[in-house]
Amino acid sequence: MHGLARYIPVLDWGRSYDRNTLSNDLIAALIVTIMLIPQSLAYALLAGLPPEAGIYASIVPILLYAVFGTSRALAVGPVAVVSLMTATAIGQVAQQGTAGYAVAALTLALLSGGFLLFLGIFRLGILANFLSHPVIAGFITASGILIATSQLRHILGVSAGGFTLFEMVDSLVTHLGTLNWITLIIGVLATGFLFWVRKGLKPLLRSLGVGPRLADIAAKAGPVAAVVATTLAVWGFGLHDRGVAIVGEVPQSLPPFTMPGLSLELISELALPAVLISIIGFVESVSVAQTLAAKKRQRINPDQELIGLGAANLGAAFTGGYPVTGGFSRSVVNFDAGAETPAAGAFTAIGLAIASVALTPLIYFLPKATLAATIIVAVLSLVDFSILKKTWRYSRADFAAVVATIVLTLAAGVEVGVAAGVLLSVALHLSKTARPHVAEVGLVPGTQHFRNIKRYTVETVPFVLTLRVDESLYFVNARFLEDLVQDRVYEGSGIRDVVLMFSAVNEVDFSAVETLEAINHRLKDLGIGLHLSEVKGPVMDRLKTAHFLQELNGEVFLSQYHAWMMLSQNDGPAQAAE
Amino acid sequence: MHGLARYIPVLDWGRSYDRNTLSNDLIAALIVTIMLIPQSLAYALLAGLPPEAGIYASIVPILLYAVFGTSRALAVGPVAVVSLMTATAIGQVAQQGTAGYAVAALTLALLSGGFLLFLGIFRLGILANFLSHPVIAGFITASGILIATSQLRHILGVSAGGFTLFEMVDSLVTHLGTLNWITLIIGVLATGFLFWVRKGLKPLLRSLGVGPRLADIAAKAGPVAAVVATTLAVWGFGLHDRGVAIVGEVPQSLPPFTMPGLSLELISELALPAVLISIIGFVESVSVAQTLAAKKRQRINPDQELIGLGAANLGAAFTGGYPVTGGFSRSVVNFDAGAETPAAGAFTAIGLAIASVALTPLIYFLPKATLAATIIVAVLSLVDFSILKKTWRYSRADFAAVVATIVLTLAAGVEVGVAAGVLLSVALHLSKTARPHVAEVGLVPGTQHFRNIKRYTVETVPFVLTLRVDESLYFVNARFLEDLVQDRVYEGSGIRDVVLMFSAVNEVDFSAVETLEAINHRLKDLGIGLHLSEVKGPVMDRLKTAHFLQELNGEVFLSQYHAWMMLSQNDGPAQAAE
Repeated sequence: MHGLARYIPVLDWGRSYDRNTLSNDLIAALIVTIMLIPQSLAYALLAGLPPEAGIYASIVPILLYAVFGTSRALAVGPVAVVSLMTATAIGQVAQQGTAGYAVAALTLALLSGGFLLFLGIFRLGILANFLSHPVIAGFITASGILIATSQLRHILGVSAGGFTLFEMVDSLVTHLGTLNWITLIIGVLATGFLFWVRKGLKPLLRSLGVGPRLADIAAKAGPVAAVVATTLAVWGFGLHDRGVAIVGEVPQSLPPFTMPGLSLELISELALPAVLISIIGFVESVSVAQTLAAKKRQRINPDQELIGLGAANLGAAFTGGYPVTGGFSRSVVNFDAGAETPAAGAFTAIGLAIASVALTPLIYFLPKATLAATIIVAVLSLVDFSILKKTWRYSRADFAAVVATIVLTLAAGVEVGVAAGVLLSVALHLSKTARPHVAEVGLVPGTQHFRNIKRYTVETVPFVLTLRVDESLYFVNARFLEDLVQDRVYEGSGIRDVVLMFSAVNEVDFSAVETLEAINHRLKDLGIGLHLSEVKGPVMDRLKTAHFLQELNGEVFLSQYHAWMMLSQNDGPAQAAE
Repeated sequence: MHGLARYIPVLDWGRSYDRNTLSNDLIAALIVTIMLIPQSLAYALLAGLPPEAGIYASIVPILLYAVFGTSRALAVGPVAVVSLMTATAIGQVAQQGTAGYAVAALTLALLSGGFLLFLGIFRLGILANFLSHPVIAGFITASGILIATSQLRHILGVSAGGFTLFEMVDSLVTHLGTLNWITLIIGVLATGFLFWVRKGLKPLLRSLGVGPRLADIAAKAGPVAAVVATTLAVWGFGLHDRGVAIVGEVPQSLPPFTMPGLSLELISELALPAVLISIIGFVESVSVAQTLAAKKRQRINPDQELIGLGAANLGAAFTGGYPVTGGFSRSVVNFDAGAETPAAGAFTAIGLAIASVALTPLIYFLPKATLAATIIVAVLSLVDFSILKKTWRYSRADFAAVVATIVLTLAAGVEVGVAAGVLLSVALHLSKTARPHVAEVGLVPGTQHFRNIKRYTVETVPFVLTLRVDESLYFVNARFLEDLVQDRVYEGSGIRDVVLMFSAVNEVDFSAVETLEAINHRLKDLGIGLHLSEVKGPVMDRLKTAHFLQELNGEVFLSQYHAWMMLSQNDGPAQAAE
């Protein structure tokens, strides 16, 4: 991709668009549209917004992503975790159900879009890498629990609230007296039905001889069936008069033009949540996009993805939506249904636009409990504690990061949880590099290869101490090396030469150069030579700009074997004792 | 050192104490005491405390350090940078000159001592390593400028204030109308005299035939001469009646027993400054102690140093002092004067105790301008901008850290400056590891050594791609590697095997293992083998706990040469295309 097409990928794939691709894209769009109608309504409910916000957030953002995004299959719109984060962020600045609440959601989308565009334009997508896999896994699991818990109030028909697990449970228990039994029955039946559709329907249809593709579509349409059945039940039996909360009036219109709130106070309060939402959303989106792209040997450009998602969020901000990102389930469905280009997304947007004009009166009697049930069933599949077992087995540091993320997300909310996970990961990584592994090495007999004397049977000579430093040398571990070399030299008597094998030293910063100079001086005072071996190109370039190499009381050898050949002779280079 | 002597080093060196050591220690103590009297008074002034606080802070802390510290020559007491940091910290919670101010200083010493002890007991001295050499150098330079500027008010005889450079200069200019000319004359003369003593006296005495040791002592006694001369001048001419600020009444007593303030509010406000003061003080102290110890081939135990300094600060908290640490100038004087054991420190403490009882009436007429002059002359030697040039030449990242530290220390105060320096250093280090250097390598002819194909003339075969990954693999760069391998494989046609040379990979965390698994799967799908070579022991141990090795579509070779021998044959291992 060259020129403009690099920034507007539609110019690339649009050129080769043909009839066959069109029919594949149209079919995929139809399936995704059917799935998205209840899902969009449900996520709007989760974000604390009116149901139409979910539909609006799926129309213009999808179109913009189709123009600027690089993934062929990614479906952009409201997703569960971002909806929860939106509710948490806006809940701190406005009261749910007020006009200010909806305006704050637009502002959040605007800030999020602006931040994503900023990262994309300056090619800073790498920032997202600070979320380690374990932190993401822990965060998604904890969010799934929080989301499911937050929806219990709709299943029970009570008006509870809260942002942390404790607050939610406390509020639910407090309000338990106002429980609505009919709502509970609808909610439990819908939840049970959806679980069965997810686990049992497809095998059943297959055993009845239905083709795999059709069985799959039927399973995906389960939420629609639940919506239709419960809406009819409420309408037929007049259950809304017996206290069952329903969606009610939804404006019958295309996405309106909306203006986000721009007060400095609002912006400053939402800035940090917007950054977190952007990064979490980006990470989720890119990992889905990469997984799908790899299956067709296509490539994702993460920096261009930032621009695509940024544009989508700006679109959401001005058309009555709220923060959006590439969703896992909707993208997988899109891909499985055969979508070949982002045009499938555009057709989905058209389908949803038609729905928002034509179908909204039909969902007047839709009980909120049904939407809550679709959310609960969807997010419980995100909850996966196996990451605890996996990381425990692999490394305690990764395990600690997962546990901290899960516990703090549940106990202190999504923002604290993810921030703590990132900070702890970084701190643990740095602390590992602070006391690096240093191995004394010797020659593996019959090779030119050097290995740890504690792990392999190797050749050594007593007057040459060879230390392989297994870490980049920088300020955090600079003093450590100084102490270590001094200890080893004082320990071993008769050492004439010290070789630092730099094969694993990827960086030597200014503090570390000063340390190397100090080591060189001390060894020189003791009449011991200091040599380096296997110094890598970039490190050598750097060292040449310092005085260290001129003062070095020894040599820099290309390979450790070369150093060994020169120094292990008894008549090796005599060192000047000064 | 074993058993109790490890924690109370006095038990070690005390046993071999003899008459010769005693006389050396006594001489050193005398010289240091003479130097410390004006210095202690001056630093108390800098901290905004009554002059006696400086003397008190040098008595009990020295004794406690002599028992618990490991350095033979370190002299503990008030130092310039810590005095400035104390003034900044306490200035935020109490008004200078009030009883609350002195009590807050005690609390700060208590918190600082407690924190140091905590670090020492849990062997967390490594925390201090987060201050890189460039950050320390920048911080000390900026602090020197701030300290010198803060003392100008005493030279000018005006009552200005402020904690940042701008505030100080602004306040000085505002108060310039109240300038006291006599004070200014005393201040300028004293400053000029002290500069001359520092630079010109020793060469002069030497040229007059005075022995080097005596010339040195005479130069060190310069501040005492300035104190005596200006005190006599004020007394003789009654200058205190003409507006020259003098030290005035100083209680004639041994250090009193004092109780630090323990209110939760005070503690919470001073906790963070105490942490910063402790770490800065510890770093300064340890680097002095290590420099001096190395000269005599003695060792410093940093964790025990924390305990020694912690005890010294607790001592200061309960005897009318304020935060203390090992000072550079006083320690060097102590060392040069021949101190052999911490007993020299104990004798210094006795000398100062005598001074605080006997000599305090004599300094009634000592002008504050003289003390300010001793501070200015002392701290300007700390100002050294050469670090800017050195780091600029060596690396832009180190340079950026220095500049940020200097600018923010001057513009926003000591606490913000040092915190920003540390955070920026860490961020720059992480960002360097985020896009690691990866070299394609080939065999250096005639050796078994592999080098970058872009830097050396090496042998390669087109169907084997060998990449040397020059960084530990962890969450921040995990995705980078995945993209890179994919790019290279798509680029190069006819690749049959990919070898990742792990000689520089010092850690593989959980996120990176998942990435390696993903790379393995993708290459397997393409019928390409994935091999590892030169995997280090600790990394191999870790990889064995993951599934990755079982699933690896290739081998792990001990050495890269071994991998090359196996794979570079045209009939090398065929790869399963699945």
